[in-house]
Amino acid sequence: MTTAINDYADPRVARRAIRAGKHTGHTARMAPGYVQGNLCILPADWAAEFHRFCTLNPKPCPVLAIGNPGDPMLTSLGEDLDIRTDLPRYRVFRDGECVDQPTDIRAVWRDDLVAFVLGCSFSFEEALVEAGLELRHWTTGQGVPMWQTSIECAPAGRFSGPLVVSMRPFKPADAIRAVQVTSRFPAVHGAPVHLGLPEQIGIADLGKPTWGEPVEVKPDELPVFWACGVTPQAVVARAKPPFCITHFPGSMVLTDKRNAELAAL
Amino acid sequence: MTTAINDYADPRVARRAIRAGKHTGHTARMAPGYVQGNLCILPADWAAEFHRFCTLNPKPCPVLAIGNPGDPMLTSLGEDLDIRTDLPRYRVFRDGECVDQPTDIRAVWRDDLVAFVLGCSFSFEEALVEAGLELRHWTTGQGVPMWQTSIECAPAGRFSGPLVVSMRPFKPADAIRAVQVTSRFPAVHGAPVHLGLPEQIGIADLGKPTWGEPVEVKPDELPVFWACGVTPQAVVARAKPPFCITHFPGSMVLTDKRNAELAAL
Repeated sequence: MTTAINDYADPRVARRAIRAGKHTGHTARMAPGYVQGNLCILPADWAAEFHRFCTLNPKPCPVLAIGNPGDPMLTSLGEDLDIRTDLPRYRVFRDGECVDQPTDIRAVWRDDLVAFVLGCSFSFEEALVEAGLELRHWTTGQGVPMWQTSIECAPAGRFSGPLVVSMRPFKPADAIRAVQVTSRFPAVHGAPVHLGLPEQIGIADLGKPTWGEPVEVKPDELPVFWACGVTPQAVVARAKPPFCITHFPGSMVLTDKRNAELAAL
Repeated sequence: MTTAINDYADPRVARRAIRAGKHTGHTARMAPGYVQGNLCILPADWAAEFHRFCTLNPKPCPVLAIGNPGDPMLTSLGEDLDIRTDLPRYRVFRDGECVDQPTDIRAVWRDDLVAFVLGCSFSFEEALVEAGLELRHWTTGQGVPMWQTSIECAPAGRFSGPLVVSMRPFKPADAIRAVQVTSRFPAVHGAPVHLGLPEQIGIADLGKPTWGEPVEVKPDELPVFWACGVTPQAVVARAKPPFCITHFPGSMVLTDKRNAELAAL
């Protein structure tokens, strides 16, 4: 007998199951209503610069939590949350190359590692759907399309690179509503960064995303672009730190914070 | 010696000067920071229906105050505010025709008249400029362009008609900021109703507004459309009540409320 993903209504229960090796897939639809996050773990001698990069670029890199060097416990995000065991799967990078995709990183944990958890679009997407808006890529069962843009992030030391955006199409009145809804959530990318004129941010073809799958933008719709959590991943990949661990795509950090708690108002 | 308009920093002083006949022009730039309003005065047997129309269509018709039948004092909006004398100029309509444009309406005031003061775009325009955004029609010294749209207002009895919108062009990121800024002010038209695809709301030519002057929309800009206080004026003109008084265009109700007081958050 298998346990369906959406049986994990409670993030504590979900993390315990993941820790016990009972779930190694993606975390979409697990613990609905609770914040999920992107993970980036760096050695301390790279972490301060990365932290500065995040602070300078809060829309793509909203920091939800930072661990103390060497400390894998992120209890500000969740009861007993051990960042080494509580994600379904990880990616381990050496000198910018992915060398392993383990389900547990206790074997490679070090005393100098600093864990960053960054906000992810799942939270604001939930708010958009609760506001009655249609997310095209949910309707079609696709991954959200993402593009590298011509907007340069503010650099910090060895970290620099272009802003990556995700796109969701909306009718104009819904686009206005989407700005209002997501403005309430600055900790998870917040308001869109652009809408309506993709060529202005270096996007030549809406049919050819840099990552993810293209979704249809109908003639009565505008493409609306949000800063995307793939930005820091791309920036770290470019910086090629000697050691780095991230979440496996779609296998996020499950926290005990409710999405509604992140609402700024 | 003449008194410059912007010497009237205090709306109480400005209203007293207007009441004394010392100022009969427009009220733009008078009492900066204070709310100005549109005026519509109707007989009681038309007022209830108009009130219903406003409640059903709050974006074009945000009610700031309603007088008691026959009572010209609107003290909720301003100390000693007498709606018969405190506007620079009025328009008096009989059966839908403008029959006079007096500077004082005491001679035509009646015991059954109900005064409505509706929010006006001056308030949110001030908020946009304070947020560092450029208002093109301010830069060029033009009147804001307005269009009758294909969006029908919700009808109420004898009052019905299309939504009228005003347009301000912004670069996409500024358009997003403009949505945020004006969302704070639901009492003065609030967030835009549309952006980017004028043909979707029945606007065929941005160069030919129904009222006001065309302003340039540059290739890197989107037209952003707000519900406009001309909507109720057009609706009342169409309903042709036997008697009606409005402000003269640009000669608004000066109130003691600060624009910042209207911010919903």
